[in-house]
Amino acid sequence: MSFSIAEAFAPATVANLGVGFDILGLALPAPGDIVVARRRTQPGLTITKITGDHGKLPLDPSKNTASVAAMKVLQLANRLEVGIELEIHKGLPLGSGLGSSAASAVAGAVATNALLGEPLTRQDLLEPALDGEALVAGRHPDNVGPCLFGGITLFTRADIGGLRTLPIPSDLHLALVTPKVEVTTAQARAVLPPTIPLHALVHQTGQVASLIDALYRGDVPALAQAMSSDHIVEPARKHLMPFFDEVRQFALQHGALTVTIGGAGPTLLAVCRRADDAKTVAQAMSDAYQQRGIANLAHHCQVSLQGAVVTNFQ
Amino acid sequence: MSFSIAEAFAPATVANLGVGFDILGLALPAPGDIVVARRRTQPGLTITKITGDHGKLPLDPSKNTASVAAMKVLQLANRLEVGIELEIHKGLPLGSGLGSSAASAVAGAVATNALLGEPLTRQDLLEPALDGEALVAGRHPDNVGPCLFGGITLFTRADIGGLRTLPIPSDLHLALVTPKVEVTTAQARAVLPPTIPLHALVHQTGQVASLIDALYRGDVPALAQAMSSDHIVEPARKHLMPFFDEVRQFALQHGALTVTIGGAGPTLLAVCRRADDAKTVAQAMSDAYQQRGIANLAHHCQVSLQGAVVTNFQ
Repeated sequence: MSFSIAEAFAPATVANLGVGFDILGLALPAPGDIVVARRRTQPGLTITKITGDHGKLPLDPSKNTASVAAMKVLQLANRLEVGIELEIHKGLPLGSGLGSSAASAVAGAVATNALLGEPLTRQDLLEPALDGEALVAGRHPDNVGPCLFGGITLFTRADIGGLRTLPIPSDLHLALVTPKVEVTTAQARAVLPPTIPLHALVHQTGQVASLIDALYRGDVPALAQAMSSDHIVEPARKHLMPFFDEVRQFALQHGALTVTIGGAGPTLLAVCRRADDAKTVAQAMSDAYQQRGIANLAHHCQVSLQGAVVTNFQ
Repeated sequence: MSFSIAEAFAPATVANLGVGFDILGLALPAPGDIVVARRRTQPGLTITKITGDHGKLPLDPSKNTASVAAMKVLQLANRLEVGIELEIHKGLPLGSGLGSSAASAVAGAVATNALLGEPLTRQDLLEPALDGEALVAGRHPDNVGPCLFGGITLFTRADIGGLRTLPIPSDLHLALVTPKVEVTTAQARAVLPPTIPLHALVHQTGQVASLIDALYRGDVPALAQAMSSDHIVEPARKHLMPFFDEVRQFALQHGALTVTIGGAGPTLLAVCRRADDAKTVAQAMSDAYQQRGIANLAHHCQVSLQGAVVTNFQ
């Protein structure tokens, strides 16, 4: 069975979670990117349209994360005779720390696989999505993992088997704010220290262990405590986030248990124990940026168990 | 209620577990150290006898881990008027990687607390035991934690609240061999790199996260995989362990899932899934050292849920 058109939605994801730099990530319910894949008669892959990117993304299929992932799906499925036109609708802002490039790659892979009648499993799509993501940010599965599989994921090795889904505390509520300033992943990586002292390793491994332990025990305060104990990445990056300390402080005053940088930023992720708190904190962070003349998007939600989904096919 | 004599047993412990350097440790059922505390009429603390140490440990109570811990118990309990004589029976070889100094400190603290009628909780004894341990190895709670509380412990912060007991997979079986060569903690610390590259941090945090995840899922093969993925401490230290690679290889051939250095060494810890395997592996490792002319002690066991115990009082 195969289709003439298939559409997929891939959600925003937040990587790192403080001490889990490059190994942890979680899926949000929304916003996300949508990719529509349509059959065309001649083989090959084109991008017919991109919306929501303010003209920043390349239509060249060899340079776009969605099409590179889609092409890899055709190769893996051994269906290179199939011709595909892609439409990409960016719901995620670029360089925002919400896993924008991962979402396009995942949506491209999922839509293409759906168009072919799903010859590949979700697990099989990790490789193509990573190939797409690699164009922009390197092969960092901390966004691709939760985007494909949903939930909170741990990536431990450079192979597919290293991806694991972790338990989600039922009273984990998130508030997010994305100020409208761009922080590129390259920029955010350039400020990281090339080496760290051994004692910092001991601290960081202890906190990561504590974070996993807190997830399994469903202990949101302990989770927040562990997330906020990163002594390496956040201190190096926070000057790239406008008014980080002020907005963080404001969120804490309004009931957040902790605030960390989402991925490479500038999105800030606040952890709360109640939906009401998360709503208040999202509004407070938004107001804090507004008062400082920085436009922003804020919302609150829980972790989504759902990763990317096929939203339409015919 | 108080007593005229109290005796405590504190078991061997194995710290680090590969990637869990300075944060993880586990308790063995045996061997261990025994400390006997007796009241004497005049206040103050003396050590009347030490056995099993080949004359290496100081009788000066200000320089012995057991008596320093005991003294701190008297202080915390506000019972400095009590006079105590200690006898220390070392069941654990010094500098063996089995937590010898921690065991003496813990046994000293537990025996003294028992003698006083247990005015302090087990939790209260962490501080005194750490003070004792600090004489020899610095304040490293990765041995003191499991020695006091049993099981597998995670230590994440420099305060008592940071100690957490983790689940123990029911099919986790251990084989241990202690070659009769001494590796001091100071020596083993001196060979560690002062700094590490950032990518090594990412690897190590990922593996530690995987180790905690494996404990919660009761997945012994995944636990072994994570334990054996230390790229920092083991490579720097293994030249201090005689025939490390050969004995490790021998253990793997006989059914071990992995072999890591116990604490600062030279004890080697092998992980198995069955009691039979652990028995075979212990024998194989012992034979391997024997054939190379190195006397050794080997045994197999499971993690002990029991930490130090009061074995006698009257």
